[in-house]
Amino acid sequence: MTNQNPGTVTVACLQFEPQVGKVEANLAAMERLIRAAAARGAELVVLPELADSGYNFDSPEEARALASPIPEGPPSQKLIALAAELGLYIVSGMNELHEGTVYNSAIICGPSGHLGTFRKLHLWNREKLSFRPGNLGLPVFDTPVGRFGVVICYDGWFPEVFRHLARENCDLVCVPTNWVPMPSQPAGAEIMANILHRAAAHSNGLPIACANRIGTERGQEFLGNSVIIGADGWQLAGPASADGEEILIATIPTGVVARNRAVSERNDVFGDRRTDVYG
Amino acid sequence: MTNQNPGTVTVACLQFEPQVGKVEANLAAMERLIRAAAARGAELVVLPELADSGYNFDSPEEARALASPIPEGPPSQKLIALAAELGLYIVSGMNELHEGTVYNSAIICGPSGHLGTFRKLHLWNREKLSFRPGNLGLPVFDTPVGRFGVVICYDGWFPEVFRHLARENCDLVCVPTNWVPMPSQPAGAEIMANILHRAAAHSNGLPIACANRIGTERGQEFLGNSVIIGADGWQLAGPASADGEEILIATIPTGVVARNRAVSERNDVFGDRRTDVYG
Repeated sequence: MTNQNPGTVTVACLQFEPQVGKVEANLAAMERLIRAAAARGAELVVLPELADSGYNFDSPEEARALASPIPEGPPSQKLIALAAELGLYIVSGMNELHEGTVYNSAIICGPSGHLGTFRKLHLWNREKLSFRPGNLGLPVFDTPVGRFGVVICYDGWFPEVFRHLARENCDLVCVPTNWVPMPSQPAGAEIMANILHRAAAHSNGLPIACANRIGTERGQEFLGNSVIIGADGWQLAGPASADGEEILIATIPTGVVARNRAVSERNDVFGDRRTDVYG
Repeated sequence: MTNQNPGTVTVACLQFEPQVGKVEANLAAMERLIRAAAARGAELVVLPELADSGYNFDSPEEARALASPIPEGPPSQKLIALAAELGLYIVSGMNELHEGTVYNSAIICGPSGHLGTFRKLHLWNREKLSFRPGNLGLPVFDTPVGRFGVVICYDGWFPEVFRHLARENCDLVCVPTNWVPMPSQPAGAEIMANILHRAAAHSNGLPIACANRIGTERGQEFLGNSVIIGADGWQLAGPASADGEEILIATIPTGVVARNRAVSERNDVFGDRRTDVYG
């Protein structure tokens, strides 16, 4: 199935708890959630960062041992088969081994197979010990369900990333993530990751779908709070709970009209940019 | 008085209701609030956009008739005298007439007199009928109470602006503003302007002090919600009420150590930027 309703895409964010080192179990959980999202009408599903391998590696050697090639490896092949069977698009964080180098990546696949790979550009803290920074830029995927970009977790701390993808005329950005607590987060407040992505959506007129993981892995807590944000910066679905497995679903307009960035009778976010001042 | 406590600045945002066309009354309200903030220890005060003239002009001719030169005009001279008398720094929105052209500007003055002018770079909607876009770039003011930049209202919708000022090593950005409701704002939710500025503060490690106006002027509602945001993106003071006159005060660290943009043992927001990808 490709998009049955031209001009929209129904996107689902699949929040769950990957187990570090348990690739088979993680793929089973991913399959269960992808099938459930498909049954609810999802045309595009987003899964967390490093969904296949878990995150908090004891060593770079452990990270490497859990990595596999995209699209040749068994985890990729599993997702590619599911996308074909269910007729939907999948964006999932994956621990990638490519020509001897390990990347924090995302696979993008659909009914017709592997569409491409994104490699995380901005590595967070100890990730720098295990992964090489992404070297594939910010690819954009033009599909029957919309034109979308992919970034991973800390990439979203850089406003340049969303500006770039909006100017590339994306309908949506998919964000596999493993958000962790920020040191100064007040108890009970909306998490800063959601603040950042809502601002990015609003100031670019760009929907953003973030799938975070849950659980505590070797002492590292993750925040849940997956969210689907509309072009105006308000939540279409979520934020999800901090600790529950959840499927968030929302339907987002796509196409040239939806990508109109006009914000008033006389303003649009790109036409107003003062590149003479800030480059 | 210049900064008695090196390494911090006590900043105040003065939220009030300017009256369109009533420059004398507005200056009297501004003086009253500036004196009150000084008595509470403010070293730097920020007032709303177009605080001297009001905002919702019937015509470009009315806007022009209410404009005055910076720093020669009576409104400027009044603020310059107050800054000298009280020994503090003032950033205030002003309706500026310069060589026959009208700008939506801010005056920056201190104990030693006029320091400079900022002219709003990104004009919102009908402002384009009355004002010419700013032609003074993004000036930075290096003072005994800190190094700060100034932007006005819709300028803050452009993430490039805060990125630029952070990279210019500002301690703080002062934002005179006249925020109005966004069409899709859900009742009771945190206003989008605060989401945008908290994201900008967090992703740049850059404190931001926003002074909004209140009231309804010729049918145009303003949002109040002035706020002082710390380098981590959390509020140090405010958001203020939607409709009350208020003085917000917070003390912000300044100087080289405060401007350290490290966010983890291995990350800093500028060192991690992938200019190879997004320019």
